[in-house]
Amino acid sequence: MPLDFAISPLPRDLTTDLQTKIDQKTKPLGALGQLETLALQIGLCQNSLTPHLTKPSILIFAGDHGVVAAGVSAYPQSVTAQMVANFLAGGAAISVFAKQHAINLLVVDAGVNADLASHPQLINAKIAKGTQNFLTQAAMNSADCLQAIQTGADLVTQQHATGCNCIGFGEMGIGNTSSAALLMHTLTGLPLAQCVGRGTGLDDEQLAHKVAVLQQALQQNVGWGELCEPQQTSHGFVGVLTSPQPTPLQALTTFGGFEIAMMVGAYLQAAEHGMVIMVDGFIASSALLVASCLYPQVLDYCVFSHVSDEQGHQALLKHFNATALLNLNLRLGEGSGIALAYPLLQSAVLFLNEMASFAEAGVDSK
Amino acid sequence: MPLDFAISPLPRDLTTDLQTKIDQKTKPLGALGQLETLALQIGLCQNSLTPHLTKPSILIFAGDHGVVAAGVSAYPQSVTAQMVANFLAGGAAISVFAKQHAINLLVVDAGVNADLASHPQLINAKIAKGTQNFLTQAAMNSADCLQAIQTGADLVTQQHATGCNCIGFGEMGIGNTSSAALLMHTLTGLPLAQCVGRGTGLDDEQLAHKVAVLQQALQQNVGWGELCEPQQTSHGFVGVLTSPQPTPLQALTTFGGFEIAMMVGAYLQAAEHGMVIMVDGFIASSALLVASCLYPQVLDYCVFSHVSDEQGHQALLKHFNATALLNLNLRLGEGSGIALAYPLLQSAVLFLNEMASFAEAGVDSK
Repeated sequence: MPLDFAISPLPRDLTTDLQTKIDQKTKPLGALGQLETLALQIGLCQNSLTPHLTKPSILIFAGDHGVVAAGVSAYPQSVTAQMVANFLAGGAAISVFAKQHAINLLVVDAGVNADLASHPQLINAKIAKGTQNFLTQAAMNSADCLQAIQTGADLVTQQHATGCNCIGFGEMGIGNTSSAALLMHTLTGLPLAQCVGRGTGLDDEQLAHKVAVLQQALQQNVGWGELCEPQQTSHGFVGVLTSPQPTPLQALTTFGGFEIAMMVGAYLQAAEHGMVIMVDGFIASSALLVASCLYPQVLDYCVFSHVSDEQGHQALLKHFNATALLNLNLRLGEGSGIALAYPLLQSAVLFLNEMASFAEAGVDSK
Repeated sequence: MPLDFAISPLPRDLTTDLQTKIDQKTKPLGALGQLETLALQIGLCQNSLTPHLTKPSILIFAGDHGVVAAGVSAYPQSVTAQMVANFLAGGAAISVFAKQHAINLLVVDAGVNADLASHPQLINAKIAKGTQNFLTQAAMNSADCLQAIQTGADLVTQQHATGCNCIGFGEMGIGNTSSAALLMHTLTGLPLAQCVGRGTGLDDEQLAHKVAVLQQALQQNVGWGELCEPQQTSHGFVGVLTSPQPTPLQALTTFGGFEIAMMVGAYLQAAEHGMVIMVDGFIASSALLVASCLYPQVLDYCVFSHVSDEQGHQALLKHFNATALLNLNLRLGEGSGIALAYPLLQSAVLFLNEMASFAEAGVDSK
């Protein structure tokens, strides 16, 4: 299955006209700060001086992870399926926030280790009942990885066909901060210690165990060959990747999850459709990292909703050269940061379309 | 006219029950970050485990400033009245954002230097057509200052009587960052250089002029006596206040504005009513500084919507020991930061009321 996305560069020749429109609004130059940057970006994504956000959607991709057998999470694997049920019943944070802002919410079973009851908001796209434990073998095989990417892409195309032009991706998967940390480490080269965090709430001892497990995974089982040698760094840490780097797909296959692989395809397809893409926290950003290693221009379409409290996310945002809209110390996933930031995207579009210019309002300028 | 507000301490004995309710929601402990702090605070303000925000309102207080004659603003004084018209016509940023979030918006003529046409959303409470130039005399007399405070308080009581339990205060007044800077300097003792910013967009030379004007005001015309001596500080700056400090009302009378004085009364009355108070940017915070010098417990009811790009606001928030919800480099006033942050207050209340607990959702805990 070929991996082929056609992502257009933004129409930068519209920048001047958009900026002029922004600057003529009845406010001091630049006084709306990041909202102005956001309005400009959304205008460029839509190649329009009057952009609109229509039928905003969040897809939550859920999948289980073989590595939880090694005790890397504070919660048992059963929680993945239970939280999917909670999303669908309306009891989770993302359920509440998506409803608050009239965001269409769909849950995708990418690879939950349970048989899930059907539900109008649940899409059954299960690749397998969880990944393999990457301590002993690659998390998934190449065919499954590519199928997951394609499925994520197809689901976005379905949303786009309904009139949705603004989409975000959340995730649920006990153990998936471990995958995200390894993707970050292998694809950015940042020390493992900077990439591993407490996830759902590990204490110091549990965090040390998680780091040791991931360290071991890097040493024992790298699908692309013997690339990793333990090293002492200035952070007092080991497990720095040596060259050559794995390809993004090698890293994804070896350490990823089905929900992460689907997000990769979802990001790329959304960018191909010219949709405004809302990026959630650490795991969502690790999927975007894979996507952007394949197609860097995907980042032009991305709005970074928040900086997560999960260790590593700040550095990952810096790697993207991104500024997040919110910094509320969230560390929940589910797309919750996206839903909370969405009103700011609306505000950016609304001020661009509805605010009066100095001339229209008869307000004296400087 | 006596200044007398009865502000109850928060019912701290409810803290444990509220925190337990928050902790039992289906999310890792603390995973909603600042939203959890916010939910706790709102619950305490309303003395309820099931708080609700009803009929949110923003009052924009508008007033002119005599000191603009000294060239402290990038925009002419005419803009104050023109922007009031723009608020009412729906063309300003705050008009757009308040409409977006169904926030009731009222504009109060506290002292605009123009005759304003009547409008259903405009409240005529004009004290005078602008303040005096504080380079030559106190901005206002004590009677006018107290009347302004009382008016602000009365307007909040009117809103409260309609069922509003969540209120914020915006302002419009060309020149009012100068008042705010002097209030901050005199009431916190922070160096003037830290308190003065570019307002609506002064360049370096204009900023230096503004600083010099405010410096001169401190030296020439202090209503409470000869308190200020020019000093060289480590910031290369002069105009540090020497003891004794002015009283909050002396500072307000000497350097304030009618819109700022009304906000002082509005904050205190809102706290007396147990309302959730949304604090906007630099000028709004300078009014809160005066209010909190009089009644420190007013701060318990305050939610800080954003940290402004205006120099001084960050230090002022630190003075309040406050963490703002948004940091979007806004510097617009009008209550715009409040309107943008309001959905987060809603989210805090909604998750507290609508999210399922682990027990309710049948989700395994750690």
